This record gives sequence, C-alpha cells and structure tokens, in this order.
Amino acid sequence: MSSDLFSRIRVVLSCTFHPGNIGSAARAIKTMGLSRLVLVSPVRFPDREANALASNAVDVLENAVVCSSLDEALAGTALQIAFTARSRALSHASLPVREAVVDAVSVAASQEVALVFGNETVGLSNEDVIRCNRVAFIPTDAESSSLNLAAAVQIAAYELRLAALGSPGAQESASELAPHEEMERFFAHLEKSIYASSFLQPDNPRRMMERLRRQFGRSGLEKEEVNIWRGMLSAWDEKSKKGNS
Amino acid sequence: MSSDLFSRIRVVLSCTFHPGNIGSAARAIKTMGLSRLVLVSPVRFPDREANALASNAVDVLENAVVCSSLDEALAGTALQIAFTARSRALSHASLPVREAVVDAVSVAASQEVALVFGNETVGLSNEDVIRCNRVAFIPTDAESSSLNLAAAVQIAAYELRLAALGSPGAQESASELAPHEEMERFFAHLEKSIYASSFLQPDNPRRMMERLRRQFGRSGLEKEEVNIWRGMLSAWDEKSKKGNS
Repeated sequence: MSSDLFSRIRVVLSCTFHPGNIGSAARAIKTMGLSRLVLVSPVRFPDREANALASNAVDVLENAVVCSSLDEALAGTALQIAFTARSRALSHASLPVREAVVDAVSVAASQEVALVFGNETVGLSNEDVIRCNRVAFIPTDAESSSLNLAAAVQIAAYELRLAALGSPGAQESASELAPHEEMERFFAHLEKSIYASSFLQPDNPRRMMERLRRQFGRSGLEKEEVNIWRGMLSAWDEKSKKGNS
Repeated sequence: MSSDLFSRIRVVLSCTFHPGNIGSAARAIKTMGLSRLVLVSPVRFPDREANALASNAVDVLENAVVCSSLDEALAGTALQIAFTARSRALSHASLPVREAVVDAVSVAASQEVALVFGNETVGLSNEDVIRCNRVAFIPTDAESSSLNLAAAVQIAAYELRLAALGSPGAQESASELAPHEEMERFFAHLEKSIYASSFLQPDNPRRMMERLRRQFGRSGLEKEEVNIWRGMLSAWDEKSKKGNS
C-alpha cells in the first residue's frame, strides 16, 4: 500500500549546482522508499560525481526525469510543497515539514504530489514558490539555518515515510515480559537472598526493596531475564549457606 | 534553556573513514543547535575535505574532541544512545529515533548524553553497542537501508531538536543517573561476583553479561542504586569466599 502511495510522490530539485548533491539526494530518497527524482535545469547532469554519491541508488538517477521548467516538472501534480528556509518573507503561510507531509500523504493516496527544493545558494525563487500550493520549512537553529540540500531532502523524505507508515514505527520489544506473578516470586527470592547474604541497608531494609522494585520496574524483566536472575540468586544462596555454616 | 540542554549533548562518531562525512556531520548538528562533536580514532582528521564540507560549521570541527577509545568518548555521560541499522540482531531492544530522543531530552536537562554513530561500512561493533545503554534505529525502506553517515546524524539531531523544543521545559528525571564509568565498574563487579558464585550460564557467560547489561541499560541505574548493588555484591562476595574456603 505505502509503495503505491510512494509511487505518486516525486522529488523535484530545481537548478541544482553540484552533481554530488543530486547523487546524495537520490540516495536519501531511496532509503525512505521513494524513487522518483525530477531535475529542473541541473547545471551538471548526468555526472560521475552524482553516481558516486548515489551509492546504491544509481537506479534513481538513471530514471530521473530532466525538465527545462518547473511547470513541466510539476505537470500532473495535485499538491506541490515548496521547501524554503523559515525566515523568508512570503505570502504563503509556511508549515513545519512534519505538518506539511500529513497532507502529502493523504493526497498521494489517489493523486500526484511533488516535494520541491531549490538550489544550494538561493533556494527557490519567489516565482517558483508561488507555483506550488504549499510552503514548508525544516526547523533549524536560528543562527545556523543553512541545511545542505541533500540533508533537507533526507529530512523531508524521512518525515514523509513516517507519516505514511502512520507511526514512528514502534518495534515490538524482542521478547515477552515476565507476568506479574513471576516478578513477585523473583522479588521474594531477591529479598531472601539479600537477608541470607547479611547485607542490610543501615537504615531501612524495606525501603531498599522498594528501591529495587522501582529500579526493575522501570525496565521490566523479560521471562528469560527472570530465569537468569533466579539462577544467580540460587548460586549466591548456596554460597551463603556454606558461608554461614 | 534549550541551549543549556543542547550543551549537555555530544555526538560521537566512531572510527569514521571519510573526513568529508565528519565535516557534513558537523554542519548537520550545527543546523540543529548542537555543537559538541567527539571523534573516536578518525582515519583522517583534521582534513581539508572535512572543513570544506562543514561549510559554516568549521568551529564545530575546531572544537571537536579526538579520543582513542569509546569509553573515553563516553566518560561522564549518563545516557548513551547507539545508532544501528534496524535489521541487526542484538540483544538490546532497538527504539525508533523519535522515541529514543525523548529520554535524551529529559536526561540532558541535568546530565550528559551521547548520540553514538559507527563508521560508514560496518556501523558500530557489538562491543561498542553494549557500552551504550540504549539502541536506536532510523526507520528506512527495508530494501535500501543504507543511510549516509551524515544523513543519519542529521535526522537524529533534527528529531532531538524537535523533541527539545516540543517538550515543555524538559522534565527532569527524579534522581541522578550514574555516569558511564561508574556503570562499567558496576558491570565488572557483577561479572566477578557471578564467577565467584560459580553460577555460569550453560551456553555462554559472555552472552549472559550482554543480557544483564541490556536489562540494566533499559532503565539506567541511579547513583544510589549503584551503591546498593555494589553493597549487595560485596556481601555475596564475602559469602562466596567463605563458601569456597
């Protein structure tokens, strides 16, 4: 499903100077599952440096479409998002990229979308910006807002991917956490072992168990981890018995 | 306020091959308001190519700290987040970067934090990863997961910035977490105590220590908790000595 959606999204680079940035942008979009690059009047393309920096995304460069105008590049798109630095005075209200991609995802469910980036020194011209129906910016430090072109493309593609997948991709934890009753047996064992070792907190042993519960509670224990702990405690208990006898 | 927070966050690059990537990483972090770069055994640094790609972030390179080991680079940090590709088989559960930075922001309200990246070809070694108490990944396309190093740094720094600005005054964690070097001493003690108790996992004692590191890493240990554990281990050690005699 998301690959269908991604196939309706093109990344447009307008008047790029350095072929290395075109290659890096190709790599950036491919890592996020996008594949369509459209180049408006690139200064040098195709170029060896672009291929070198594309790494395993040379196919993206080979399939890139070269146009002579932004209008040509945007043909057929229902939504065009122009990326500009935040400070620019514009008639369009500019949205942070995380908000802007929400619309991109919903439109791309059925229609074509373009993410549009200007060149390395001046970005997009006002002429270009007004040909797009949305403006977005990438939040940066106020005193150092100069993102590399491919870095900006990387962040936009990343945000788009996360919005398309619907969530930050929460990975299920590797293993099953131990159920409550197993944890209680573990804590009882731990307490017994601590007494057997003659280790007592000077002030208050009960408070120490509370602290240990809280500490294990922060992470939880997986079933296998409980088994490891029970095994270690039993080994210590055995030594304590001998030591006390 | 957030600049104080950012000043407690270091970006650690381990064994980077290409100086250009160091320069691009410097530029990437500066755009997001970070400034501290720590380099573990860089192959070529300082280098003209690093400076060229740093653009207006040459100050970040000039202030970069070069170390000869990861432990040195992590000294004083309470939270270390290792970035790895998602697919790696690891004992640590890996969090998507957007979730991982939430903790980074809350810990950095009062303590030092490290974001740790491996080199361009193999990433971080397992040895390196287990010295960190969190593992994070950047969601990518399954078939094209090879992010450029500086692109990965860019996304992590961006997510960190958004989490820091979005969090209403970054909540402080209840108590102070133990710094890296104290945790390493604790793990060394734990391992020794386990051997002394004659408890060995049937299959692989090294793997067991990795599991224990991972389990403690999930929650972190507060300074006082480390003291409790060291005290308990010493009591068990005493019994083990008597039990063995």
